Amino acid sequence: MPVTWGIVFDLLGTFFFAISGSLLAAQRGFDIVASLLLASLTGLGGGVIRDLVIGTPPAAFAQPVHVIPPVAAATLVFFLSGTVQRYSRALLVFDAGGLAVFCTTGTVTALSAGMNPVAAVLLGVTTGVGGGLLRDVVANRDPQLFNPNDLYAVPAFVGAALIGTLWIVGWYGPVTLVAVTVAVFAFRVLSLHFGWRIPHARGPWPRHRT
Amino acid sequence: MPVTWGIVFDLLGTFFFAISGSLLAAQRGFDIVASLLLASLTGLGGGVIRDLVIGTPPAAFAQPVHVIPPVAAATLVFFLSGTVQRYSRALLVFDAGGLAVFCTTGTVTALSAGMNPVAAVLLGVTTGVGGGLLRDVVANRDPQLFNPNDLYAVPAFVGAALIGTLWIVGWYGPVTLVAVTVAVFAFRVLSLHFGWRIPHARGPWPRHRT
Amino acid sequence: MPVTWGIVFDLLGTFFFAISGSLLAAQRGFDIVASLLLASLTGLGGGVIRDLVIGTPPAAFAQPVHVIPPVAAATLVFFLSGTVQRYSRALLVFDAGGLAVFCTTGTVTALSAGMNPVAAVLLGVTTGVGGGLLRDVVANRDPQLFNPNDLYAVPAFVGAALIGTLWIVGWYGPVTLVAVTVAVFAFRVLSLHFGWRIPHARGPWPRHRT
Repeated sequence: MPVTWGIVFDLLGTFFFAISGSLLAAQRGFDIVASLLLASLTGLGGGVIRDLVIGTPPAAFAQPVHVIPPVAAATLVFFLSGTVQRYSRALLVFDAGGLAVFCTTGTVTALSAGMNPVAAVLLGVTTGVGGGLLRDVVANRDPQLFNPNDLYAVPAFVGAALIGTLWIVGWYGPVTLVAVTVAVFAFRVLSLHFGWRIPHARGPWPRHRT
Repeated sequence: MPVTWGIVFDLLGTFFFAISGSLLAAQRGFDIVASLLLASLTGLGGGVIRDLVIGTPPAAFAQPVHVIPPVAAATLVFFLSGTVQRYSRALLVFDAGGLAVFCTTGTVTALSAGMNPVAAVLLGVTTGVGGGLLRDVVANRDPQLFNPNDLYAVPAFVGAALIGTLWIVGWYGPVTLVAVTVAVFAFRVLSLHFGWRIPHARGPWPRHRT
Repeated sequence: MPVTWGIVFDLLGTFFFAISGSLLAAQRGFDIVASLLLASLTGLGGGVIRDLVIGTPPAAFAQPVHVIPPVAAATLVFFLSGTVQRYSRALLVFDAGGLAVFCTTGTVTALSAGMNPVAAVLLGVTTGVGGGLLRDVVANRDPQLFNPNDLYAVPAFVGAALIGTLWIVGWYGPVTLVAVTVAVFAFRVLSLHFGWRIPHARGPWPRHRT
């Protein structure tokens, strides 16, 4: 992946996740600084975990340009208006954008660093779901990732596995990267719209929440 | 620790913790993918933190074989049946298995990497309690680690300290490793069975939860 | 920063945050071991993240002396008496001490490691707020960092930015380090006392908490 494409994609994914972080901050009544912090954590968290596992200096700190998307996101959300209901939907759509970008680019970054394909796909999924998981955990709410009415991680896994396959067969390139990313985004948004679900971790029993 | 023994123990501990993650997912009504993710995070999380602190590439990603225990655990829990009550007990027993394996092998891994004994014991405890802590934090519940009616971390600390002592006096080997691990597991399970407790962080005052 | 000064400051910040962790453990009715664990996580967590991002072995493990502040904090809180109300206030004051020390020394550590100023300020803020965030997340409560009636992160940002500026213009030294740290602490405590606030992430809407 040429450096330019890589950084553009990285900043785009960061921006999408950052918007979802700022929207959650707005929904929860956090102040503007907390909004910026949650935007940064959501946008940059997945990539920092990815880089720490690979063993390279985290791009979020090595390249100062990474502070721009969270600042832009927090500012944008601060000045836009809307209702809480709209926030919930917009949050999910922007979260889908971040998920799509990071599951594919995370896999590519791991493969470029010489990781084996299985680990690269695993790290791609981790990068994709990591930012949103950190966002939900620090905001002290049940992670969207574990929502039983939502197949959140499936598009991320499909995207990472597709990129891994394309890489192995030699068809990986900017065009296929964009195509897979768009397909993952579409898959995620359609799954939300139509309420697609997958089987529960266990067969039927009385719903019980400890 | 010969490589073969090390990987067998690592996979065993991963499997125990992964089962506890999948059982929590089942208990909470998560779907099968969330169950796999929680199994992976619980089983592999402690080891990833251990390897990041030591500065080696995380084994969970470097050796693809590490994906097998979480997949096996999520599949097993999916097809087994039981009641929620049984889940709670089974979760604690498997969690005890993971705790026992990781507190001892975590200490050994740190000592093998040349860490000082104090740091190695500290990292052994971190490896032991890390997976379960991550599991409880992302599942948004009060960590078992902090349950005031449970001396969760004490067996982990005893196990790590015993391994550190055996290493220093030169009695460390596969037999003593297995013996300490089994002893930690027995200590943990007995403490649960008999409800052993330790003093609170502060003397008596009205129970108050903020 | 001479090694001696650095370690003294690091241990001081660790002690402040460790006290805040033990106080939260006391307030929540955790036992003495959980108190020690929460003290360690709060006191050492921010520094471990800082060192992992910089790429140096985490000081918390490399230098065994770092276990002393959490042990001292958990012991002190265990033997002191008070009411829950007093705990809440003391927790905030000690948390302010940890925040002040770590936001300045975190920035200095990053600059000393050759990071660019923007990244160093970002990492200083991360180091400052990281320990308290980990404390609140694992104790399963809404992070103080996101409390909309509290400008928690602002003093940390001001402190990190001041240190970065002093470093660039060549005025950085032990005296200015102490001065900025004390100023950040004073700013934080005054903001708590007078209830200073900043704008919310979004304009007015019905308070709604999902």
